[in-house]
Amino acid sequence: MHEFIAELYPICRSITGDGLRETLKRIGKRIPLEINEVPSGTQVFDWTVPREWNIRDAYIKDQHGRRVVDFMRSNLHVVNYSVPMKATMALAELMPHLHSLPEHPDWIPYRTSYYTENWGFCLTQRQLEQMRDGIYEVCIDSTLKDGSMSYGECCLKGREDSEILLSCHVCHPSLCNDNLSGIALMTFIAEYLSRLELRYSHRFLFLPGTIGSIAWLSRNEENIDRIKHGLVVACVGDSGEFNYKKSRRSNAEIDRAVPHVLSHSSPSFKVMEFSPYGYDERQYCSPGFNLAVGSLTRSPNHCFPQYHTSADDLSFVRAEYLAESMTIFLKVINVLENNRTYVNLNPKCEPQLGKRGLYRSEGGKIDGQLHELAALWVLNLSDGSASLLDIAERSGIEFNAISNAAAALAAHDLLREVPDSSKNQNSPSRACGAPGDA
Amino acid sequence: MHEFIAELYPICRSITGDGLRETLKRIGKRIPLEINEVPSGTQVFDWTVPREWNIRDAYIKDQHGRRVVDFMRSNLHVVNYSVPMKATMALAELMPHLHSLPEHPDWIPYRTSYYTENWGFCLTQRQLEQMRDGIYEVCIDSTLKDGSMSYGECCLKGREDSEILLSCHVCHPSLCNDNLSGIALMTFIAEYLSRLELRYSHRFLFLPGTIGSIAWLSRNEENIDRIKHGLVVACVGDSGEFNYKKSRRSNAEIDRAVPHVLSHSSPSFKVMEFSPYGYDERQYCSPGFNLAVGSLTRSPNHCFPQYHTSADDLSFVRAEYLAESMTIFLKVINVLENNRTYVNLNPKCEPQLGKRGLYRSEGGKIDGQLHELAALWVLNLSDGSASLLDIAERSGIEFNAISNAAAALAAHDLLREVPDSSKNQNSPSRACGAPGDA
Amino acid sequence: MHEFIAELYPICRSITGDGLRETLKRIGKRIPLEINEVPSGTQVFDWTVPREWNIRDAYIKDQHGRRVVDFMRSNLHVVNYSVPMKATMALAELMPHLHSLPEHPDWIPYRTSYYTENWGFCLTQRQLEQMRDGIYEVCIDSTLKDGSMSYGECCLKGREDSEILLSCHVCHPSLCNDNLSGIALMTFIAEYLSRLELRYSHRFLFLPGTIGSIAWLSRNEENIDRIKHGLVVACVGDSGEFNYKKSRRSNAEIDRAVPHVLSHSSPSFKVMEFSPYGYDERQYCSPGFNLAVGSLTRSPNHCFPQYHTSADDLSFVRAEYLAESMTIFLKVINVLENNRTYVNLNPKCEPQLGKRGLYRSEGGKIDGQLHELAALWVLNLSDGSASLLDIAERSGIEFNAISNAAAALAAHDLLREVPDSSKNQNSPSRACGAPGDA
Repeated sequence: MHEFIAELYPICRSITGDGLRETLKRIGKRIPLEINEVPSGTQVFDWTVPREWNIRDAYIKDQHGRRVVDFMRSNLHVVNYSVPMKATMALAELMPHLHSLPEHPDWIPYRTSYYTENWGFCLTQRQLEQMRDGIYEVCIDSTLKDGSMSYGECCLKGREDSEILLSCHVCHPSLCNDNLSGIALMTFIAEYLSRLELRYSHRFLFLPGTIGSIAWLSRNEENIDRIKHGLVVACVGDSGEFNYKKSRRSNAEIDRAVPHVLSHSSPSFKVMEFSPYGYDERQYCSPGFNLAVGSLTRSPNHCFPQYHTSADDLSFVRAEYLAESMTIFLKVINVLENNRTYVNLNPKCEPQLGKRGLYRSEGGKIDGQLHELAALWVLNLSDGSASLLDIAERSGIEFNAISNAAAALAAHDLLREVPDSSKNQNSPSRACGAPGDA
Repeated sequence: MHEFIAELYPICRSITGDGLRETLKRIGKRIPLEINEVPSGTQVFDWTVPREWNIRDAYIKDQHGRRVVDFMRSNLHVVNYSVPMKATMALAELMPHLHSLPEHPDWIPYRTSYYTENWGFCLTQRQLEQMRDGIYEVCIDSTLKDGSMSYGECCLKGREDSEILLSCHVCHPSLCNDNLSGIALMTFIAEYLSRLELRYSHRFLFLPGTIGSIAWLSRNEENIDRIKHGLVVACVGDSGEFNYKKSRRSNAEIDRAVPHVLSHSSPSFKVMEFSPYGYDERQYCSPGFNLAVGSLTRSPNHCFPQYHTSADDLSFVRAEYLAESMTIFLKVINVLENNRTYVNLNPKCEPQLGKRGLYRSEGGKIDGQLHELAALWVLNLSDGSASLLDIAERSGIEFNAISNAAAALAAHDLLREVPDSSKNQNSPSRACGAPGDA
Repeated sequence: MHEFIAELYPICRSITGDGLRETLKRIGKRIPLEINEVPSGTQVFDWTVPREWNIRDAYIKDQHGRRVVDFMRSNLHVVNYSVPMKATMALAELMPHLHSLPEHPDWIPYRTSYYTENWGFCLTQRQLEQMRDGIYEVCIDSTLKDGSMSYGECCLKGREDSEILLSCHVCHPSLCNDNLSGIALMTFIAEYLSRLELRYSHRFLFLPGTIGSIAWLSRNEENIDRIKHGLVVACVGDSGEFNYKKSRRSNAEIDRAVPHVLSHSSPSFKVMEFSPYGYDERQYCSPGFNLAVGSLTRSPNHCFPQYHTSADDLSFVRAEYLAESMTIFLKVINVLENNRTYVNLNPKCEPQLGKRGLYRSEGGKIDGQLHELAALWVLNLSDGSASLLDIAERSGIEFNAISNAAAALAAHDLLREVPDSSKNQNSPSRACGAPGDA
C-alpha cells in the first residue's frame, strides 16, 4: 500500500481535472473501476458541478527572475482551484494572497477555494520571511472552464443485492494520510475481496470530497436503500489509535460491529457519536438519506498537526499502520458478512452437547472451553431476535468464536437460521453490476 | 431586588392575615396582581382553609416587668399561629413552650403550628440560659378567627394560551432567602417580561405554602392543562450553587431546559430527581396533576444552617446573587419561549451554505465557525422530531447559537417550523386575562 | 444449619444412588418432602436419565497391601460415577487415572464422569508423589445399572397458585459450601415458612445437578408458568460477600428484589448479568422457559480456591455466615410476598396526613420522619403502575418502611390495591399440593 501511495503522491489532484482522472486510472489498473464523468454545470441536489480546473505551472519570481515559490517543487504551493493569473506586483499587494504557518515554519499549508473565484500561494514561513520588498512576477498557468468532474466506482457482486459501501475522497493533492492512505486501503481491500465469494455486494466509491458524494447520491437515489452498512475511509496510515465516528443512527449494525472489532483488537481506541462535521458521512448521514455509514480513521481530521500541510508526507504514513488498518477493516467486513440470526431448535433446557462431541469430556484445553462457552451463549440467546453480533456483545466473546460455535451447532441441527426482522427488505431495484461489468 | 426584600422584611407574614395582605399589596404596586381571598372553612381537596391569624404583640416579662422575649424586636420570637395567651407561670411550666437552637446560641429558630392549636416562643439559646427560675408573665396578643386566606396572581398574556407557571410561597415572616428572595425575583421577572411580547402566557403565583397551592389548584382545576412548564422559586439570594430538582415527569422540557442553561452558565450546579418533599412542587407534582413543574433554588431548603432561623436575614442574601439568579431564570424562559421544531426543506445532502452567505469562504473567525457548526447541526437533526433544545443538547452548543442558526436558515427557506407532536394540545378553555385584567 | 451440614457431610452422594436417597430422606425428616424416582433410560428433553451408580468401596493398594488411596477415608478419592474396576497394574498404566492438584498439595480434587464411562482416583499431590514405581492393586467396588434418579420436592401452599421457586443441587459428595450449605439453607427456610401464612406458594426443589432440573422441567412443563420468581441456592456458607446473578430476563422482579435487599443489608455485594454458565439457572433460563430465576450465592462457583476440593469442608462453612444468608433470603422472600401496587385515592394534592395522625405535629423523632417520608413517596408514586418495590427503589427507602407506610395509608382509605398489570395471569392449571399432600 505504501508503494501505491508513493506512486500517487506527486500527482496534483483536485475536485476535478486531469490529476484526478490520472489517479482513478491508476486505481483502475488494480481493481475493476468504472470511471464516471459529470459535466460542469450539472445540478446535483442543491449544488452545481463546478467548472473543471487544470494547472500546468505556477510560480512567484523575484526581481532576479528566481522562482521563490515554485509549483514544480510542490503542488501545495498553489491554492487549489486558483484562477489563472499573470501579473507583476509589489510585495504589499501580493501579501494577502500568501498563506503560511507561523507555528510550523518549515511546512507548507494546504488551501483551496473551490466555490469562490480566488488565487493564492502557500509557502513556508521561512520562505515568506525571506521575501524582501520589491516587485514580483506572479504566474498561475491554470485553466478553469467547462469540462467534467470524474469519480470512480467499483462494485463487487455478492450473493445478495444488499450492499456494504466504502467511500473515500480522492481530491487532495500531495497529502498522504489525508487521503492517499484511504485510497490505497480501499484499493487493496477491493482487490482482496474480489477473490472471495461474498454475501453482500461491496461498493467502493472514490469521490471528490463533498461535491462527489452529493453527485453520486443524486445519481443513485433510487438504489440507495440497498446500502445496509458503510464506512467513510480516511487517515488510516498514521500511528494514531483508531477513532470510530458513529453513523447518525448511532446504533446501526456498523456502529456496533466496529467497536466490537476494535475492543478485541486494539488496546485503546475511541468511539464518538455522529456529528455533522468531517468527511462525506455528512452527506450519507444527511436526514434525507440517514444511511448507516460511519467513519473509521486513525487520527481524525483536524486532530494531528500535520493535517492539511506538507508534513503529511510519505514519511508520515507507514506500511505497518496501513497493514493494521487493513486488518481491522477486513475484520469489520467479516462481522457484517457473517452476522446472522438463529433460532435454537432445542430451546427447552440445554441440549446434551457431549453426545454430539461438542463438549470436552474431562478437563480440557482453554480453547475447547471457550468454544463450549460460546456454544452455550449461542444456544441461550438464539430465540430468533438476537443476532450473532448481539450475542458476541453480550457475552464479551469475540465474534469469530461465536460465529464458529453457531456454525457447529447448525451443522448438528441445533440451530436454524432465520431472517433478521430488524433489517429492511432489499429493494426490488436493479443490483449492482458484476465485477466484469465495470 | 435587595431593596424590595428590605422593604418586606419587617412584616409579620403567615399563611393568612394582614401581614400577608400587606405583602401582596406591595407586590401589586410593581406588577399587575390580582389578590384573591379564600374564606376560612373552605374545603380545598382534602384540606380546609384555616381560620385567619393576626397578631399585635407578644412577650414574656420577668418579675421585674422586663420583656425578656419581645415580639416587637423580632416576629420570629412567637411560634407562628400561636393561639391567644395571657398568663403568669413558673419557668418550669413555660419551658415546654420555649424553643431555641443550642448549636447556634445567637439565632432565633422559626417555628409554626398551623393545624394544631398551640402556642410558644422562640428565642436564642443565650436568652434561654439567662432566664432564672421564677414567675413569668406570658402574653400573646393574637387572634384566630374566621376570615380568609389571601393569595396573589399575575398573568402576562402571550400569543398562546399555553402557560409557563412561576410559583413562590409568601407565608414566611422575617426570613430573607426563604422566601423574600423568591418573592422579589418573581416580582422583578414579571415586571421585566411585562414589557416584552411573549409567546407563552406567564402566570406568577404568590401563595401561602401548601394550603395556598392546594387552594389555587382546587379553584383552577379546569384550566390546569394549560400549564406546559413551571418552576417553584425559593432561596435564590444566597451564595450557594444552583440546585435544580426535576419535576415528577423527570424528562419534561423544563427538566432539560434548566440543566442546559446551567451547564452553559455555571461552573458547578446540581440536578436532582424529583422527591415528594420540599415546597409547592409537592402539590403541582401530585399524581392527579403531575405537572411539568420543577424547583430551582440556590442552596435548597434544609441545606444551609441559616435555614428557618433569624440568621436568614438581610445580610445573608446579596444583590449580586439575586441578579445572577434572575439571569438564569430569564435564560430558562428564553429557551422555553424559543424552543421550536423544524423540518429541513433540503434534507438530501447539505445545502450549499456558501452561495447563501451562510458559510465563511476562507479561514474565518471562531464565531463564524461556531455559527456554521450550529447551522450544520440544525440542518442535520431537523427532521421534524428534534426540537432546538434537543439539538442544543446533542451538539453541546448553547441554545442561543442553535436558535440563531435556525432563524437564519429559516429566513433562507431551508427550514420550516412544524408543530411539536410531543406537546399536548392546548385546552380549548378560557385563556388567562391580559395584564390589564388584574 | 451447620449441624445439619455435619450430619450430611459423610454421605457419598451422586446424581443417582443410595447416598442421594439417604440425603433426601434426612431432609424429609425436617420438612414435608415428596421424593420422586425417575427410571434410568427415561428421556427428558434432549437427555436420558443415566443408569444408577452405587459404590461400596474403592482403593489403590501398594505391593505391601497398604491402601495408599482409600475411599473409606474420603469419598472424593474416587472419580464420581467410576465404572467397576478390579485389576493390578503398573504405576505408569495407572497414572492417567490419577488426579491431583499440584498447586494445593494437601487437597483432594473432586472429579466426575457421569456421561462417559471412565474410572479414576483423586488424591493429594503429596500422596501422588509418594507412590513409587511398582505394581498396584486397583479396586472400585461400584455398580452402574438400571435403577432410578431421585429428587425431592416440597411445596408450601400459599393463598395464590403463583409460586416462588427455590432450587439447589444435591449431588455433590463430601463438599460443604457446594452445596450442603444450600441444602441446609433451603431446608431451614422451608421449615420456617411452613409455620407462616403465605401469599405465594413456595416450591423447594432438591435436585441432582443438570439432569435433575432437566427432568423436573420435563415432568412439570404444563405448570411452569406458575413460577413467578425463583432463586438457585448454592455456596451460602462461606465468608465471601454476596453475589447475585440475574435471570436471563435481567429486569424481572427477583432481579430487582435481591439487589434492593442487599443494598440495604450488605456493605458490599456484586450483581452480575445472566450468563449461561453456572448451576441449574442454565436450565430454568433456557430460552424455551426463560423463567425469572436468578442465582444468589456468597462466593460463586469457580471463584474460591477450595471449590471442588476436599478443602471445602466443615471448617470452610460457618454458622454465622449461614445465618446471615438465611436473613437475606428471608428478606428477599418478604419483598416478593409483600410487593403490591396501589392507586392513590386522593391523587390531587397531598392528603392532610396530620388530621389522620400520620404526621408528626412538631419536631419529631427520626423514625417518625422516615415513616412520613415513606408515606409521601407512596402517595406520590402510587398511580396504579408503580409497585412498592418500584417506590422503594426510586426513593432509596428500604422496602419494609415503604410497605408499612402503604399499609397505614390503606387503613385510612387513602390507597386501594390494584392488580399489577405487568404480571402474567396465573395459569388455570392445578395448583401445587398442600404441604400435607407430600
